[in-house]
Amino acid sequence: MFVKNAWYVASRIEDIAEKPLARTICNEKMVFYRAKENKVAAVEDFCPHRGAPLSLGFVENGELVCGYHGLVMGQDGKVISMPSQRVRGFPCNKTYATIEKYGFVWVWPGDQSLATEAQLPALEWADNPEWAYDGGLFHINCDYKLMIDNLMDLTHETYVHSSSIGQKEIDDALPKTLIEGDKVITERFMENVEAPPFWKMALRGNQLADDVLVDRWQRCHFFAPSNVHIEVGVAHAGKGGYQAEPQNKVSSIVVDFITPETETSHWYFWGMARNFQAQNHELTQQIKAGQNTIFSEDLDMLEQQQQNILDHPNRKLLMLNIDAGGVQSRKVIDRLIEKEKTNTQHISHLNIS
Amino acid sequence: MFVKNAWYVASRIEDIAEKPLARTICNEKMVFYRAKENKVAAVEDFCPHRGAPLSLGFVENGELVCGYHGLVMGQDGKVISMPSQRVRGFPCNKTYATIEKYGFVWVWPGDQSLATEAQLPALEWADNPEWAYDGGLFHINCDYKLMIDNLMDLTHETYVHSSSIGQKEIDDALPKTLIEGDKVITERFMENVEAPPFWKMALRGNQLADDVLVDRWQRCHFFAPSNVHIEVGVAHAGKGGYQAEPQNKVSSIVVDFITPETETSHWYFWGMARNFQAQNHELTQQIKAGQNTIFSEDLDMLEQQQQNILDHPNRKLLMLNIDAGGVQSRKVIDRLIEKEKTNTQHISHLNIS
Amino acid sequence: MFVKNAWYVASRIEDIAEKPLARTICNEKMVFYRAKENKVAAVEDFCPHRGAPLSLGFVENGELVCGYHGLVMGQDGKVISMPSQRVRGFPCNKTYATIEKYGFVWVWPGDQSLATEAQLPALEWADNPEWAYDGGLFHINCDYKLMIDNLMDLTHETYVHSSSIGQKEIDDALPKTLIEGDKVITERFMENVEAPPFWKMALRGNQLADDVLVDRWQRCHFFAPSNVHIEVGVAHAGKGGYQAEPQNKVSSIVVDFITPETETSHWYFWGMARNFQAQNHELTQQIKAGQNTIFSEDLDMLEQQQQNILDHPNRKLLMLNIDAGGVQSRKVIDRLIEKEKTNTQHISHLNIS
Repeated sequence: MFVKNAWYVASRIEDIAEKPLARTICNEKMVFYRAKENKVAAVEDFCPHRGAPLSLGFVENGELVCGYHGLVMGQDGKVISMPSQRVRGFPCNKTYATIEKYGFVWVWPGDQSLATEAQLPALEWADNPEWAYDGGLFHINCDYKLMIDNLMDLTHETYVHSSSIGQKEIDDALPKTLIEGDKVITERFMENVEAPPFWKMALRGNQLADDVLVDRWQRCHFFAPSNVHIEVGVAHAGKGGYQAEPQNKVSSIVVDFITPETETSHWYFWGMARNFQAQNHELTQQIKAGQNTIFSEDLDMLEQQQQNILDHPNRKLLMLNIDAGGVQSRKVIDRLIEKEKTNTQHISHLNIS
Repeated sequence: MFVKNAWYVASRIEDIAEKPLARTICNEKMVFYRAKENKVAAVEDFCPHRGAPLSLGFVENGELVCGYHGLVMGQDGKVISMPSQRVRGFPCNKTYATIEKYGFVWVWPGDQSLATEAQLPALEWADNPEWAYDGGLFHINCDYKLMIDNLMDLTHETYVHSSSIGQKEIDDALPKTLIEGDKVITERFMENVEAPPFWKMALRGNQLADDVLVDRWQRCHFFAPSNVHIEVGVAHAGKGGYQAEPQNKVSSIVVDFITPETETSHWYFWGMARNFQAQNHELTQQIKAGQNTIFSEDLDMLEQQQQNILDHPNRKLLMLNIDAGGVQSRKVIDRLIEKEKTNTQHISHLNIS
Repeated sequence: MFVKNAWYVASRIEDIAEKPLARTICNEKMVFYRAKENKVAAVEDFCPHRGAPLSLGFVENGELVCGYHGLVMGQDGKVISMPSQRVRGFPCNKTYATIEKYGFVWVWPGDQSLATEAQLPALEWADNPEWAYDGGLFHINCDYKLMIDNLMDLTHETYVHSSSIGQKEIDDALPKTLIEGDKVITERFMENVEAPPFWKMALRGNQLADDVLVDRWQRCHFFAPSNVHIEVGVAHAGKGGYQAEPQNKVSSIVVDFITPETETSHWYFWGMARNFQAQNHELTQQIKAGQNTIFSEDLDMLEQQQQNILDHPNRKLLMLNIDAGGVQSRKVIDRLIEKEKTNTQHISHLNIS
């Protein structure tokens, strides 16, 4: 079950160029391509003629042509033409609302009459010269909600990422979880600790001493349907921590867009946005490489956790205080899914009466 | 569901030599081997002793010996012997009628009392010194009926084979479909067109000019249970087209024997027979290599089409005029399957009363 | 269905070192590790917190730590601690009795209150300086009972191992099967035969002539739950055969510990123990290499036999005289499984009343 009436990141903007791109999102097989005026369109990846994937075709004059027998599909899901055929009676394909913004292509798998640009998240770091951003994409064979759990409970850093961002003090600093409507925040503050290797690298990158104690923070923000952005940073100890002046700290936002593929797989768009040394591209690449290494460490754990849960269908999982971020985020998801169901029933009811 | 009482190509003759060959045809696991007098025999690939595949065994004095404990299987499905055992009460294996003809081993998966050589297709090009033939074999993960559709609707050439045999004019020349009993013919004629690259190569191969306009034809013959042979050719324009004299045309037969393996996989024996330059072996190899390249282009499309259809169980496929060849061929198959069912019920009824 | 209240070989002792080892035995996912005092412990491979496999974690001071969030699992299945958590109410994991003996780690997948060291088999050759032993481990995708069949009916040697230990005379010497409680013995004696290549090598290894006729024997011992040890050997002909004096024979024990993984896969611990030239390590390696080659020949046959049986669910297998060893061994297994079921029902009944 997925929240369908919401924006998900489908790809980076540059991933959709001349060739159509096939991607399954929330169990819907979609094909993305550049339609008229170079705008991204998304339709069901199924040719109404003989069922070939339209993504094996090509784009001609901004129109998607099936690579099997030349049916031309419109971005409104109506068949435009087919050699020597009258196509008026052909069945239509489902289409999906899309927006290109912040460097990403966003897709709305549900009822596109409900999709508005205003519902996109506001990302202060995107398209902003004072910030630098870069990241990557993983395909992961586990429920997207296990990834949300992972990111909303950073105690795993001590164990999974012990050589880069983990440190024992994370275990000792209990997180606090706040709920604001459909948003969940889990925050943790550590004082007078030694910076772990990744943060020493970042301190040096911002021309700060890396051999002094620091105050460290992690503020995980879940926002519906399934994205997690984490404010992270360290300040030289005693300079105000999270509130410290820019010259005493180094901070950034871990940017995670989590897009469900099926019930047990998802697309994981990860990255980091920072507002120090924004023009230092070498530092950007260094951070991206470090993040790539760190996030790779989660893959095996998440996929094997998924398999283990499937193998033990009768075992319940615990929900501890450290899990509050994930638990509350799942509650938001469940509530939104329930709301969509009720609305759909309501609409059905109206139609019938 | 398959037509069982029919001849299917099981392999090329040379594929069955010293070692037994395992092949699943119409969902029946068979083992082929050279029995007495070097004749090909086919029995169920299951040792009645402990279930080992007989195809892992060996042939000794024209008898198939199980490679596990030495049971000797007769080509009549009766166990001949087993070391230190009386085998009279052993259960029998199913056996299959086979014929070696036209360079192929043919098998009859159904009731072998109904199998006669007369039911083999008559192939004028085979074993005929005025003709040359060569081809290859693909294993394809899709319903064999999707391959029949593919071959009975050559409008796909324009899209799938655009750089070799495809050309826009195919789309414009509507095909005509004729039904003659269990045979279906779909034919298309194009006049005053430029020959596509494959045919320019063939014109040169037959010492004809390749820089003049041609008349082109495609006549697809479906014959039960699941084979498609296509008369193809080009003649210098205005010389009579399909009816042109030999010195003005180049023509051949695309030979496709399609043998179902399971409901979603098949063996595809493809080849080309031609009656010009029949002794030019270099040309034969050139044509085979070209065909191999062209037919490989269909593989991904067919396998992904199959997967897409399985993923969309509720979507119906369209049946357009261009699909008439495939649609009519499927009707023949359905009718033959229905007939076999009725006959079987009739036999059951007789047995019971 | 498996006999659960029994000792199975889980691994060689040296396979469990610093890192935890995941192994599924009788459908139970277990993690093995070195607990306090270096003793091997085994618990369910499932973290009660969020379902991660504990085998991805590490051992610290003899305690198993989950690699995801640091939960510390006790070898009694009770959670010992977790950073910043009270763990008293946490659900327990199943644990498994283990023993290290004879170079192996043994595990008891069932009710560990019934497990006693006395129920381990007595192995005269193990930890005995007059004997040499070495062997290997295969993972095989077939029912462990097919492997028991294989080892209790050595007529397959003539076919599967024709170039090493097979010989035609095996087929002619009918085996005799004896049943002693939960033990099954199948024995076969051949007189005045030529030694096959493996045994010629062994004769030379024991400094005996290899160019004279021999008497050969095979005595297969099945003991519950699923292990087969085979006394094998050859003596110079006429010197008493199985009863011959040591200076006239070369003999050894083929040691097979067969541990079910799932219904269609198992772990196969094979080896050979001998009491001649026990200190000749080069000979030990030579025998192990030979055995490795020979036993590899069974793999493909067993896995394809399994697949063929699954593909033919309605076909029954034969039970011939040569199969008596396997048939009787399966009867023992069935009887023990039945007994466990009855006992469990009895216990349930007592609990209810």
